[in-house]
Amino acid sequence: MPRTDGGRVVADLRRLAEFGRYKTGVHRPTYSADDVASRQWLADKFSEAGLDPVIDGIGNVIGHDPRASRRLLVGSHSETQPHGGWLDGALGVVYGLELARAFAADPALAGLGIEPVAWADEEGHYGNMLGSRSFIDTLADSEIDAATSRDGKTLRTALTEAGYAGRPRELLDPARYVGYLEAHIEQGNTLEATGRKIGIVEAIIGNWNYWVTVTGEQNHAGTTEMHRRRDAGAAMVRLATRIDDCFAEIAAPRTVWTIGRMLLDPNAPSIVPGRAEMQVQFRDTDTGILALFEARLNELVAEANARGPCRVAIEPISKSTPAAMDAGFQSAIEVAAESHAAGLHLRMPSGAGHDAQILSRRMRSAMMFIPSINGVSHHWSEDTSDEDIALGAQILADAAAAILRAG
Amino acid sequence: MPRTDGGRVVADLRRLAEFGRYKTGVHRPTYSADDVASRQWLADKFSEAGLDPVIDGIGNVIGHDPRASRRLLVGSHSETQPHGGWLDGALGVVYGLELARAFAADPALAGLGIEPVAWADEEGHYGNMLGSRSFIDTLADSEIDAATSRDGKTLRTALTEAGYAGRPRELLDPARYVGYLEAHIEQGNTLEATGRKIGIVEAIIGNWNYWVTVTGEQNHAGTTEMHRRRDAGAAMVRLATRIDDCFAEIAAPRTVWTIGRMLLDPNAPSIVPGRAEMQVQFRDTDTGILALFEARLNELVAEANARGPCRVAIEPISKSTPAAMDAGFQSAIEVAAESHAAGLHLRMPSGAGHDAQILSRRMRSAMMFIPSINGVSHHWSEDTSDEDIALGAQILADAAAAILRAG
Repeated sequence: MPRTDGGRVVADLRRLAEFGRYKTGVHRPTYSADDVASRQWLADKFSEAGLDPVIDGIGNVIGHDPRASRRLLVGSHSETQPHGGWLDGALGVVYGLELARAFAADPALAGLGIEPVAWADEEGHYGNMLGSRSFIDTLADSEIDAATSRDGKTLRTALTEAGYAGRPRELLDPARYVGYLEAHIEQGNTLEATGRKIGIVEAIIGNWNYWVTVTGEQNHAGTTEMHRRRDAGAAMVRLATRIDDCFAEIAAPRTVWTIGRMLLDPNAPSIVPGRAEMQVQFRDTDTGILALFEARLNELVAEANARGPCRVAIEPISKSTPAAMDAGFQSAIEVAAESHAAGLHLRMPSGAGHDAQILSRRMRSAMMFIPSINGVSHHWSEDTSDEDIALGAQILADAAAAILRAG
Repeated sequence: MPRTDGGRVVADLRRLAEFGRYKTGVHRPTYSADDVASRQWLADKFSEAGLDPVIDGIGNVIGHDPRASRRLLVGSHSETQPHGGWLDGALGVVYGLELARAFAADPALAGLGIEPVAWADEEGHYGNMLGSRSFIDTLADSEIDAATSRDGKTLRTALTEAGYAGRPRELLDPARYVGYLEAHIEQGNTLEATGRKIGIVEAIIGNWNYWVTVTGEQNHAGTTEMHRRRDAGAAMVRLATRIDDCFAEIAAPRTVWTIGRMLLDPNAPSIVPGRAEMQVQFRDTDTGILALFEARLNELVAEANARGPCRVAIEPISKSTPAAMDAGFQSAIEVAAESHAAGLHLRMPSGAGHDAQILSRRMRSAMMFIPSINGVSHHWSEDTSDEDIALGAQILADAAAAILRAG
């Protein structure tokens, strides 16, 4: 079986975290100078490991193994959230690198290859999982033409500045791979709270998002009598409360829903709000539950319109499809976890989206989680113990070997 | 009786609106170059009317009448809301000017004087009714030292740039005046909706304001199960809805309440809000009602804390005292209104705050409203017909004459 070097994994992660270091975390938005430098560093590391690296026209970094006859693609994304953590994404990429080194070093694994990958922009600085969608050929040039960052830079400009413009985009050849493996920190505290070391992802949730817009009438808060008001803020909080109550009644055990963004206009203490907006989101691994939530949400909007006096409109923003992970791959991870951390593993959904949900549309895919200290995520203080990082690398390597042998 | 010239009043209002003109309205924040220029223009107009003008150390413009033996102070503020209307404040100031001219022109009114005034910063660009509070000596130098505009300019810097620094501040000599009259557009549509031309203000509401802060725990919206969440946004909308329901149960007929400002932190669609804030305001002319509302609000905050899982804190921001207008002055306005617009007047509260509520602490005061088209206020589209403006000037002049004669 492959032998990973936990110390080397942690050292590489710490070196990678120097690109855009922020406190104990990292600020490395996609296509920033730090991101571009870190992708070159990854390509150089892939090269040192005996692989043929390529950085393609969207920024994906892949290390091709010219010697293998059966291959797994193993990775994650390498950019970070703004002022994010050092492991989110980076962990899965460095695991891919370490697995490639461990396989190359073991003559018993000759012909079985690991191709590490660092996807571009899973974190959505310019778009929605640009790198993995490009790889499975669902990212149109027209979408690239139209994409911009939050501060208004076009994706085309960013790609030109990065030096990636004009390069071909790597496209998946399904015959090349047995499948795709992605390791990630859990970004929650289920593993920590239950004392587990490894999460085996059964499915990645679907995430459905809607804008709800309430239109009333802006008025002076002193001179407008209550019976004359059409207060968009009051209507929005009433609807939001009703949504929270009604969703609780129909939720499956792991369904989550969130109203994370609200805006009042003009948002001034002495003005009756004329307009209010909120973003409603829900996630589940079961499309049936998601459809039920959507139907209930539409009913509640209709109910609010019937109640008046404000007008409520709803518009879908995005609906990602839940993605089941490959059952055989899950078993392989479970067997490897049991051999290194007996009883300390757990099958669970992924509440967050990951590149694996894109790749799973085109090939067998699986995900493995390691613990997040205090469940912290998308924050520079995110962390995982060195021991857990090292353990995860070995378990993923064992699972990869079993998968490639079983092929 | 005095004879006002409606055409002159409208012409002066239109000229004053040229200082900081914005579309059909005015953008003239206190101590801006346009505001300073307009105050000088007013001082010059007061001088043309035979008065001795002074612009004092806080920017108040007063036209002293050296010949009168009995005087009324008549005015309002002259700065505007950001991108506000051309009549809010300006109307009352130009009425003061017109009354001074009409009284001076009528030998039968010899010895009876009108002193027009333009208060500074009623609209709160730097503080809370700075000009009128300075005049009744409740504005401490330490408050002037500490005050800043929303964009961070200190009041001291603004006064220096305006050329007002170092000048003495005019202080009320109660023996000098029979009282204070302020005319204003209604800023609501009660007069328009009931076909009336004149509102006689019985009392100016008290306005009580509170910050409510909800503290929960910021988390990933995909990976944090519902039972583990402490969602500050969800707690805030539930409390806001409850406040709206419970206030409706205890309100007097003219009580108004508003949640006009809300903030979620970090206000991102995929993050469970860790913190939420809202500003709760209520207004009534009866301090007993205001106290009842405050007690109920505190109970609802306690109820939210008992419910959990978030922590709710409440902090008062400001509480203005309701101000009753002088009964004799109200009768004088009513008699004058009846003689020019029989049956077309209405006694009503003022839902908005005005300088008259400050002046009323130290002398007999009254307010008169004229209609606002569509009730629009604090917006550049605010307007009133020329006929209504002219009618209001004559009625206020008649009322002033009656008051000074009775005085």
